[in-house]
Amino acid sequence: MNSPRGAEILGQDPLVTNDAAAASTPSTLEIPGLTSSRLSPSGYIAPQDVGAKLAIIMVGLPARGKSYIVKKLARYLNWLQHRTRIFNVGERRRKIAQSKLGGEASESPPTTPSSLSSARFFDPTDPNMVSLRDQIALGTLDELLDWLLRDGGSIGILDATNSTLQRRQLVLFRIRQRAGPQLGVLFLESCCYETELLETNFRLKLAGPDYKGQIPAQALADFCQRVAHYERSYVPLGVAEEEQGIPYVQMIDVGRKINTHLIQGFLSTQVVDYLLNFNLSERQIWISCNGGSFDDATGKIGRNSNLNDNGWRYARALARFIQKQREDWEKMRRQRVASGRTWPLGKISTSSRTSNNRSRPPVSSRDSRPRNICIWTSMMPQAIQTAEPFPEDLYIKKQMKMLDDLNAGTMAGLSFDEIAVLHPAEFAARKRDKLLYRWPGLGGKGYVDVINRLRPVIMELERIQDHLLFVTHRAVVRVLLAYFLGLERDDLADMVIPKDSVFCLEPVCIIHNLSL
Amino acid sequence: MNSPRGAEILGQDPLVTNDAAAASTPSTLEIPGLTSSRLSPSGYIAPQDVGAKLAIIMVGLPARGKSYIVKKLARYLNWLQHRTRIFNVGERRRKIAQSKLGGEASESPPTTPSSLSSARFFDPTDPNMVSLRDQIALGTLDELLDWLLRDGGSIGILDATNSTLQRRQLVLFRIRQRAGPQLGVLFLESCCYETELLETNFRLKLAGPDYKGQIPAQALADFCQRVAHYERSYVPLGVAEEEQGIPYVQMIDVGRKINTHLIQGFLSTQVVDYLLNFNLSERQIWISCNGGSFDDATGKIGRNSNLNDNGWRYARALARFIQKQREDWEKMRRQRVASGRTWPLGKISTSSRTSNNRSRPPVSSRDSRPRNICIWTSMMPQAIQTAEPFPEDLYIKKQMKMLDDLNAGTMAGLSFDEIAVLHPAEFAARKRDKLLYRWPGLGGKGYVDVINRLRPVIMELERIQDHLLFVTHRAVVRVLLAYFLGLERDDLADMVIPKDSVFCLEPVCIIHNLSL
Repeated sequence: MNSPRGAEILGQDPLVTNDAAAASTPSTLEIPGLTSSRLSPSGYIAPQDVGAKLAIIMVGLPARGKSYIVKKLARYLNWLQHRTRIFNVGERRRKIAQSKLGGEASESPPTTPSSLSSARFFDPTDPNMVSLRDQIALGTLDELLDWLLRDGGSIGILDATNSTLQRRQLVLFRIRQRAGPQLGVLFLESCCYETELLETNFRLKLAGPDYKGQIPAQALADFCQRVAHYERSYVPLGVAEEEQGIPYVQMIDVGRKINTHLIQGFLSTQVVDYLLNFNLSERQIWISCNGGSFDDATGKIGRNSNLNDNGWRYARALARFIQKQREDWEKMRRQRVASGRTWPLGKISTSSRTSNNRSRPPVSSRDSRPRNICIWTSMMPQAIQTAEPFPEDLYIKKQMKMLDDLNAGTMAGLSFDEIAVLHPAEFAARKRDKLLYRWPGLGGKGYVDVINRLRPVIMELERIQDHLLFVTHRAVVRVLLAYFLGLERDDLADMVIPKDSVFCLEPVCIIHNLSL
Repeated sequence: MNSPRGAEILGQDPLVTNDAAAASTPSTLEIPGLTSSRLSPSGYIAPQDVGAKLAIIMVGLPARGKSYIVKKLARYLNWLQHRTRIFNVGERRRKIAQSKLGGEASESPPTTPSSLSSARFFDPTDPNMVSLRDQIALGTLDELLDWLLRDGGSIGILDATNSTLQRRQLVLFRIRQRAGPQLGVLFLESCCYETELLETNFRLKLAGPDYKGQIPAQALADFCQRVAHYERSYVPLGVAEEEQGIPYVQMIDVGRKINTHLIQGFLSTQVVDYLLNFNLSERQIWISCNGGSFDDATGKIGRNSNLNDNGWRYARALARFIQKQREDWEKMRRQRVASGRTWPLGKISTSSRTSNNRSRPPVSSRDSRPRNICIWTSMMPQAIQTAEPFPEDLYIKKQMKMLDDLNAGTMAGLSFDEIAVLHPAEFAARKRDKLLYRWPGLGGKGYVDVINRLRPVIMELERIQDHLLFVTHRAVVRVLLAYFLGLERDDLADMVIPKDSVFCLEPVCIIHNLSL
């Protein structure tokens, strides 16, 4: 097979063979800021620690929600501070087609650009097309391996169908050839058998980049033919992988069934853990800081404090606002159930950063039941009090220690201005790296600690199917938003969180300022 | 079918129907001390919150490691402070047989006592035996339901084969009849296909209570016939459960493959999470406090402190001792590999509390490779320094924030004597309930916090296959030992941890006092 990157990739990457220490070390738990070792002093997976890294290879027929799963998973892993990137074979194919149209021929597929999106391209009996598809797939895989082996990435996800045994062998061969035996590999398949789920996925596909602007009936016919081409040679994960001892996860109907095989390595375990908590329930997630407290009024940070008059006003306004939103949502739900329609597509979209049509969640009418609203607050009085105006019989309240404010250690009770004057060194150190910075003193914590203690909360929120209102504190709101919006490391800690406002993730992120 | 408990159990238990609030509340994450709600102020699952509870129904042919899995799982769940109990059908059967021998006939099985252990009892074509077996199984299930519905239990595990569809239907019917629709049910099957694993399991079975003192060849023949009886009507979990929407987990060859179906509820998720990290690797786990520090010498608690001379002496003695242990272990391993023997059975046993022959781990010769030794310390200087004499090239060291000492809040830096005099109220409050007590001050923590932050460490230690040395602090050592020894709530916080000593879990617990 020919490679666009030439002879240099035929041997193992130099980085892989040269670090004997990394090779002999069994990889254990790495949590940025919370673990430290010679290889990974900061807890971030070290660039040379190939054994701790992971290549996730997606498997599945088209329109099985692979890209949706992949985007959500990557967002989660990045949030945990494991550097994760998605490598999408379809995007590379379209890029090549586009560069053909623009006349820039860097690789030369023996075909016309437009055919790279039509069903013909996916014909498994056409050897030209098979070879072209292999070439595009391996080119994308090489990008992924570059990211893992040279650019400091920790997890690379190959988003492609990889639906034949032959293709999966090819992928595995190339990985072992370039990355050696240590690199963790996890095959991850998405299968759909529920008709309703499949229909929604198909509809989303026709709105996607391959069929934009085409006549719907023609587009559908072409896409069905593409799927039929795949189905002819499709082999789900199973016996072949088990005989070869290859780790895999198979998700069936998005979380209904999950089969795992030989799950090893702490990253793989975290991936499976997350996938087990997947649901596609339609609901709203609201996030608010506590109403203004006496400490807030003077800018003092990190302590228990009671709400002041403004804070109580906000608490009551919040309860009225959420009640109104709930009624609107229920009205919409009843209309939808009455009309037999599934959720209007226009309402569903992921956050701006990861938004494109292909990542919309598949929608199912099965969960058109009325929703509860859970209210999760911290255990600090300013948060508990903010939830007080919500009647106990209409809302399910729970206090969680994990939602408590970032502990400012010996700086608790000071304002930022005071810290700048009294402890300029701490102020500067914090400014240099807010994410890894920890406040001084035994109880002093930092953003990495908050991420770590929110992990079970995120799992739980992904597991339940109800609406959810968080009432917590500025630093925690930042970390929650970072999860939902897929914020990068540096954006997280600097994000401005306006007071007296509540964020709504629907998953579209809208900010509501409650005028008091 | 006749029930020993009479008519009262034919309707739902009163507790189940009377609490509408509990019924309508979706169960979310409960972590003792870390979550709080109206129903569960302490974070412990409330007795009336049936929807948050879980009945785990084991499935599998005899000698598939069910009891081993069940004991380990129950130990973990109890350690997480979820009240868990195992209900073993075989034990009930033997108890009935024994009471017959003793002449106390409370139930009247139409058979002689000795036949309750012989293969005849398991003949699926003998209607008398089938009915007797159903009766014993349902009697055990009733005990389990009593525990969940009346005695404040959170998780009940029915340890039995439940290998036929008909039996599983019967069990499910009785659960729904007594506990209503809310109680969580999880079927958990253990399948073994690896010959080596099966052989070991069979050997262990013959050493167990059913065959004690019998001639080995006869015992083996009888046991094989018993298994053959089961196999005739055995139906693994699968299609039938999927059609009925019943949640299940299927473990194949102890963690090689895991299939899950409709996993819902936070307890089920935690169970699956734990099962995913199962391994049967033979290894040693060592647990030590840090060597003596300057603070230790004056009894001051909870602060960073450097080792004093005694501490450094202990650190060096510990390194020499572990190196010697490692050499002994390696020598034994090499002898074993050379002789082709698997691990000598006499060396394997669980802790005294859960010990009986049937809970021994199945042993496999596949993991007879040399073992690394990982050293996990806290991030406090007294622990890091204690690990300093271990050479970096022979030991894999990692520091973990999760292993830091219990944060004593505003009491850090005082001795217990000082606290008793200066803060008698705190001293008394702590004494009343050490487990739920939190030290005062923003950073102040308690044992429940330590349990919670050790959860990922326990997962990781269950996942990896290497020897492990923990160097941490007294409170953390207590919590770790509580996990390994299955200590009850009140034993945990009061356990005396001698200084300058290292615990070895093999899994037999031995304490080594290093004379300095």
